[in-house]
This record gives sequence, C-alpha cells and structure tokens, in this order.
Amino acid sequence: MVTSGGCLRILGIDPGSRVTGYGVIEKSGGRLSLVSCGVIKMQAQLSMPERLQVIYNGLSEVIRSEAPAVAAVEDVFVAVNPRSALKLGHARGAAVLAAVQHGLAVFDYTPRLVKQAVVGYGQADKGQIQQMVRVLLRLSASPSADAADALAVAICHANRSVLP
Amino acid sequence: MVTSGGCLRILGIDPGSRVTGYGVIEKSGGRLSLVSCGVIKMQAQLSMPERLQVIYNGLSEVIRSEAPAVAAVEDVFVAVNPRSALKLGHARGAAVLAAVQHGLAVFDYTPRLVKQAVVGYGQADKGQIQQMVRVLLRLSASPSADAADALAVAICHANRSVLP
Repeated sequence: MVTSGGCLRILGIDPGSRVTGYGVIEKSGGRLSLVSCGVIKMQAQLSMPERLQVIYNGLSEVIRSEAPAVAAVEDVFVAVNPRSALKLGHARGAAVLAAVQHGLAVFDYTPRLVKQAVVGYGQADKGQIQQMVRVLLRLSASPSADAADALAVAICHANRSVLP
Repeated sequence: MVTSGGCLRILGIDPGSRVTGYGVIEKSGGRLSLVSCGVIKMQAQLSMPERLQVIYNGLSEVIRSEAPAVAAVEDVFVAVNPRSALKLGHARGAAVLAAVQHGLAVFDYTPRLVKQAVVGYGQADKGQIQQMVRVLLRLSASPSADAADALAVAICHANRSVLP
C-alpha cells in the first residue's frame, strides 16, 4: 500500500449509470479528514458508451488532482434483476478501470460492511449514513446522498486498513 | 460513420470476464473479408480490476494496430442471474470503454439479431455460427468459438449498415 508522510489518501466510489458519487478522504494518525467529494451526473440523453466515458474521465480527473493511493468501491449483492445488474456492472467496470489504469489498488466492500463501519450496524438507511459521514469527517453540512455513500466506502476502507 | 476509400473496418467484440473474443473485418463494395481475430484470455488468478485492465489494454492494442472505425458489441438479454450479469457488465463496460476512448462509434446487437444476420435464424448454436463465419469470410479453417462470436457481431453490423 502506498503511503506518503504517514498518511493515506483513499478514493471512495459509489458507481451508478445515472449518478456516480466519489469522495476522497485522508487518514493520518488515526484521524480522518475530507479532501474532496462530489457527484458525476450523466445527462439522460447520453448513450451507454458515453456514460462510461463520462464516469471514466470524471474519475480520472479526480485521481489526477487529488492523488489517492487506493480506491474503495461498494460491491453489490442486492437482488436486482439481471438487466439492472448488467447496467450497474458497466458503470462499476468503468469506475474500477479508471482506478487501476492510474495505478491505484482497488478494494471491494459489501454494502453491509460499509454500513457497519460507518453507522455501526448493517441495516442503516441513507439518511443515517449521511449524518454519520458528516460527524466522522467533522463537516459543517451533510454531503449529498451519493457523495456520502462514496465517502462511507472510503471510511470503511480507512477503518479496516492497518496503515498508517 | 468513418469510412476510408469506400471500405469500412468493423471491430466485433464478444466480452467475457474469462475470455473476450475480438474480430476485425473489412466491408468493401459489399464484400466482407477478415482483417484479424483472436481471444484475450484472463488467467484464473487475476482479480476483477486486473481482468478489466487486460480487456481494456488488449482491445486498445487491437484498435491501434487494425484501426477499425466502429465497434459492434453483443448485447445480452439472456436470463442470467444478477451476480453473473454484474460480472459480464464489468467486462462489457471495459470493452465498450476501450472502443469509445479510441473514438470508435459503438453499436449494440442482441444475440438473436446476430444469429439471424449470420446463420439466418435466431436460435443457431455455436457450431453453426463458427461454420457460417468461416463461409462468409472465406476462411480455410474455423476460428475459435469466442473469436467466431466476435466476428459474427461484426458481420451483423456490416450487413445492417448501409455503408459503403
């Protein structure tokens, strides 16, 4: 795992074909802080290839400007239908590819693990996640739901990694 | 649609997380010919991110050396389970991304359409597809099943496009 000066920058990604959330946090001496977060929104009229390009290029831009060492992506075990799973797979594939092509190590976490890491139990709702992300990162306001989900995955990785 | 000298080069892709087939054909004056074809095989021990990288880099290499103008990718409506659909989505996403990032227009065809275009009816089996691909491209031997599927998608696009 790459670290610099005893701190680790983690990019959390919540991939989706309409909205992809991202959040970069820094772990330093056991303390977490927000670097940046946001959402990549796909316009409704975009084709699937265009959406993947927007996700890939958008995350590449974030990686170049924030220089995270690792990426954490939410895995999906929920019982969606095969058609939705395929669509989500496209978006996740584009997101993971942006990370590996820029040399980041990629880690997968189930939604249950992410919720346990952030809220303390695996059945937390979106509002609780937003609130806990705000508290854990000492933010003055809650990030948007998609950005909060991405930050939650990053926090999950931070709490499970032994470094630094 | 990009054409050069009255001919169109088409990259057909049959994405998969273990084996991704590809085939490049040229359509010139209503006549089809093989440019190249093959498979990108992923070693069993590779992680999902590594597999996507192998697919993306492998197809990027094919696109750079054969310079196709368009890509045709098999769409998937088959009733696979969500977990398999997500995996296939990752591979398809990586494949489509390689095409759009190199400026290719991407077209989707259902397996039924591909079979109709190549064999004449939508329920053809893999052996029939391999045989018809061999006949249509005047090859001395049948390509492997995965390469043949990729060539079949390319042929489907060639037969449905009005150019040149």
